[in-house]
Amino acid sequence: MAPPTRIGLAGLAVMGQNLALNIAEKGFPISVYNRTTSKVDETVERAKQEGDLPLFGFHDPESFVQSIQKPRVIIMLVKAGAPVDQTIKTLSAYMEKGDCIIDGGNEWYENTERREKEMSGLRLLYLGMGVSGGEEGARNGPSLMPGGSFEAYKYIEDILLKVAAQVSDSGPCVTYIGKGGSGNFVKMVHNGIEYGDMQLIAEAYDVLKSVGKLSNEELRSVFLEWNRGELLSFLIEITADIFGIKDDKGEGYLVDKVLDKTGMKGTGKWTVQQAADLSIAAPTIAASLDSRFLSGMKEERVEAAKVFKSGGFGDVLTDQTVDKAKLIDDVRQALYASKICSYAQGMNLIRAKSIEKGWDLKLGELARIWKGGCIIRAIFLDRIKKAYDRNPDLANLLVDPEFAKEIIDRQSAWRRVVCLAINSGISTPGMSASLAYFDTYRRERVPANLVQAQRDYFGAHTYERVDMEGSFHTEWFKTAKQLKN
Amino acid sequence: MAPPTRIGLAGLAVMGQNLALNIAEKGFPISVYNRTTSKVDETVERAKQEGDLPLFGFHDPESFVQSIQKPRVIIMLVKAGAPVDQTIKTLSAYMEKGDCIIDGGNEWYENTERREKEMSGLRLLYLGMGVSGGEEGARNGPSLMPGGSFEAYKYIEDILLKVAAQVSDSGPCVTYIGKGGSGNFVKMVHNGIEYGDMQLIAEAYDVLKSVGKLSNEELRSVFLEWNRGELLSFLIEITADIFGIKDDKGEGYLVDKVLDKTGMKGTGKWTVQQAADLSIAAPTIAASLDSRFLSGMKEERVEAAKVFKSGGFGDVLTDQTVDKAKLIDDVRQALYASKICSYAQGMNLIRAKSIEKGWDLKLGELARIWKGGCIIRAIFLDRIKKAYDRNPDLANLLVDPEFAKEIIDRQSAWRRVVCLAINSGISTPGMSASLAYFDTYRRERVPANLVQAQRDYFGAHTYERVDMEGSFHTEWFKTAKQLKN
Repeated sequence: MAPPTRIGLAGLAVMGQNLALNIAEKGFPISVYNRTTSKVDETVERAKQEGDLPLFGFHDPESFVQSIQKPRVIIMLVKAGAPVDQTIKTLSAYMEKGDCIIDGGNEWYENTERREKEMSGLRLLYLGMGVSGGEEGARNGPSLMPGGSFEAYKYIEDILLKVAAQVSDSGPCVTYIGKGGSGNFVKMVHNGIEYGDMQLIAEAYDVLKSVGKLSNEELRSVFLEWNRGELLSFLIEITADIFGIKDDKGEGYLVDKVLDKTGMKGTGKWTVQQAADLSIAAPTIAASLDSRFLSGMKEERVEAAKVFKSGGFGDVLTDQTVDKAKLIDDVRQALYASKICSYAQGMNLIRAKSIEKGWDLKLGELARIWKGGCIIRAIFLDRIKKAYDRNPDLANLLVDPEFAKEIIDRQSAWRRVVCLAINSGISTPGMSASLAYFDTYRRERVPANLVQAQRDYFGAHTYERVDMEGSFHTEWFKTAKQLKN
Repeated sequence: MAPPTRIGLAGLAVMGQNLALNIAEKGFPISVYNRTTSKVDETVERAKQEGDLPLFGFHDPESFVQSIQKPRVIIMLVKAGAPVDQTIKTLSAYMEKGDCIIDGGNEWYENTERREKEMSGLRLLYLGMGVSGGEEGARNGPSLMPGGSFEAYKYIEDILLKVAAQVSDSGPCVTYIGKGGSGNFVKMVHNGIEYGDMQLIAEAYDVLKSVGKLSNEELRSVFLEWNRGELLSFLIEITADIFGIKDDKGEGYLVDKVLDKTGMKGTGKWTVQQAADLSIAAPTIAASLDSRFLSGMKEERVEAAKVFKSGGFGDVLTDQTVDKAKLIDDVRQALYASKICSYAQGMNLIRAKSIEKGWDLKLGELARIWKGGCIIRAIFLDRIKKAYDRNPDLANLLVDPEFAKEIIDRQSAWRRVVCLAINSGISTPGMSASLAYFDTYRRERVPANLVQAQRDYFGAHTYERVDMEGSFHTEWFKTAKQLKN
């Protein structure tokens, strides 16, 4: 088989290579290109070795573009920001009216909207497509979140449906997300939720290890067990794997040798900033981000630990004996309940943006396409999908009857775990933030009346009343002064 | 006395009127202008009534500008954003080389930097000056945070030193903050800290009222008592006042009639977004913002409360009897310790920005000028000033020896209050966030090793090790697979 091929892919780092091989394997002849040409040859070689897949390498952009059947579709997998603009410039020089470029990177959604506009000036189509699943997902079936030109989506829908992860009861993990930068935005929030999941798992690990004194082998068993129940998910599964791996450079287990400094790449930060912009409380996701920031200040933490050690503080305050089996069960419940809150925050963030931008996003559909392929894939997402199937206008996952019942069943364990952590001096920022979110959201009356009274006192910002309509202002200072006299 | 006056002020809402009267009262003849001219007449009338102050009103911008001695300085107090640009346009048409405009509003610091650049094209000087203290502070002595042209600051330093709040042991509450938009940025963080203080006080109120069952009269006594100790501050003082005020439209106390919905004006949101941008954990301030967001969703909260009430949840879960005196003392300590964490976050945010922008801000000086005039004024700020006097490079307020000791003394009470709130089902988002911040910051080893192992597992993001230099990657999946076989 020879060109013209069905589709092109530019940017052949591991993700790009893997996605290209995936596409070729599904029977779609693909052209590939990379500025550093050795990557092209590497990919062609892999295509041969992985079963003579219909993949064709090009060392120059012009012949690459011309090798693709019209209307041409090219997926870019290059670093977000300037490299995307550069690649667009290079490729679009050879593209023709009606051709399409798809950005598969973790791009800021406004950049995609700007580029879509610029491209339409050249009469080219544009998609921003979130791709989740890491290197492994790209090769074997990622979750795909394409947003932008619906016409362009239709060109390649057949490819995406085959290339995406396949979930037996709910189909391929791809759907047309919506207009503009919606695909990137949804992927951004997906990543924010992923931050939350990882932080909550780390806290569960922390409580079990620091307070429960579980060994890595015990932790492995616990996570394997959890992965057979309501927590069944990719992240729980890989966590079980991690606890089983011995250090290849010394004694003991590798996880204990990994430095407690977490990196990050921006999407979590954007999620938190967007939540603030849209007046959406997302404290679990924010706590996850803050935990990454604080983890990065290792040297300061070491110094601070010294200061407080001399005041009698150890890393963990108490050495209480706990009932391991009960602790494990409590932590599982706390993790699950906290996770519901984190997803509620992410989903409401997506909805708020959808309303602002008129994207008309379907929250249940998003839960469906996250069921496979992506990092947050989990049995739990099926429950979310069903909650939105029951009520597409559900104000918050917390008030879905099934989730509400699950939380009520777990709330005692949840409170026990958070308080145990606090009393052990280790705190659980994400679980606490989730619990505070739940306790605030389900409360008819919160103490905000005092805050509003203060604002009216010093800034004449006015207040509403519980018992009558209207906006009121009180001369608090003068009234108080009269009282004193 | 007749023009030329020493200074001008444009924008005569209450803040502007009050600041103009304050300046006039300190003996500096002032010209005032407002687009709606009735405000001008109102201000002139007030100047007469408040002691024939040297204040001169103008109904048109040209004669207003020309009435001021050269180099002219005009303070604007108009709404941030477009109205500022409009006012600059109107006034600068009549100004001459070397004249200066000062924006006294809560402006986004980048707007100030843009305007400073535009003004310098007209050979005019520019300052962005944070003004805190509300209407009352503007009239009787605000805290002033001028940033931008140092030359322009020098023109009016004598005025600002007299107009600002005067604190007996530390002088006038004003200092030259730094270049560019630093004055606005510092004011923004000041407001973020103010959000934190108000939220923490609201939580103290909530625990005392909902769990401790204190009456408004008891609450008033508690806050009056607190205002004689380490918590002495404007916000504690006005809170005591608020609890004493009866409803003028019905039975009972006014605070109980105020709707639990909190408004906001943007600076808290910016603070949280900037913290994320600068990789600074600011969870207490973020929790305050989230609490405002959730307070605003009153209707949703009412509905959610119904859902959970049918599951056995009341607004407050338990009806436990508590030792009131002990609870009050615990809450005081929890509030104080939480406050230290909140200020630590704000101060570190300012430092991070100062480093990014090369502003060379002096944190101790900022604490000094916040000691009087502004909403967060408190005896506590003197302790912060002294901490930075002891060590200007202090990594975090938490590790200052005096603050560290104060926290150690209070940590048991702090943990008791947070757990009591959690077990009562009311949670304390700000106090919990502060405690988690403290517990994370002072911990040598946090569970971030697991997060980083996960990131390396699914994304090949690499990790560092605790026992050797370098960057490592492990084939976790393959190794785990071998283990299983």
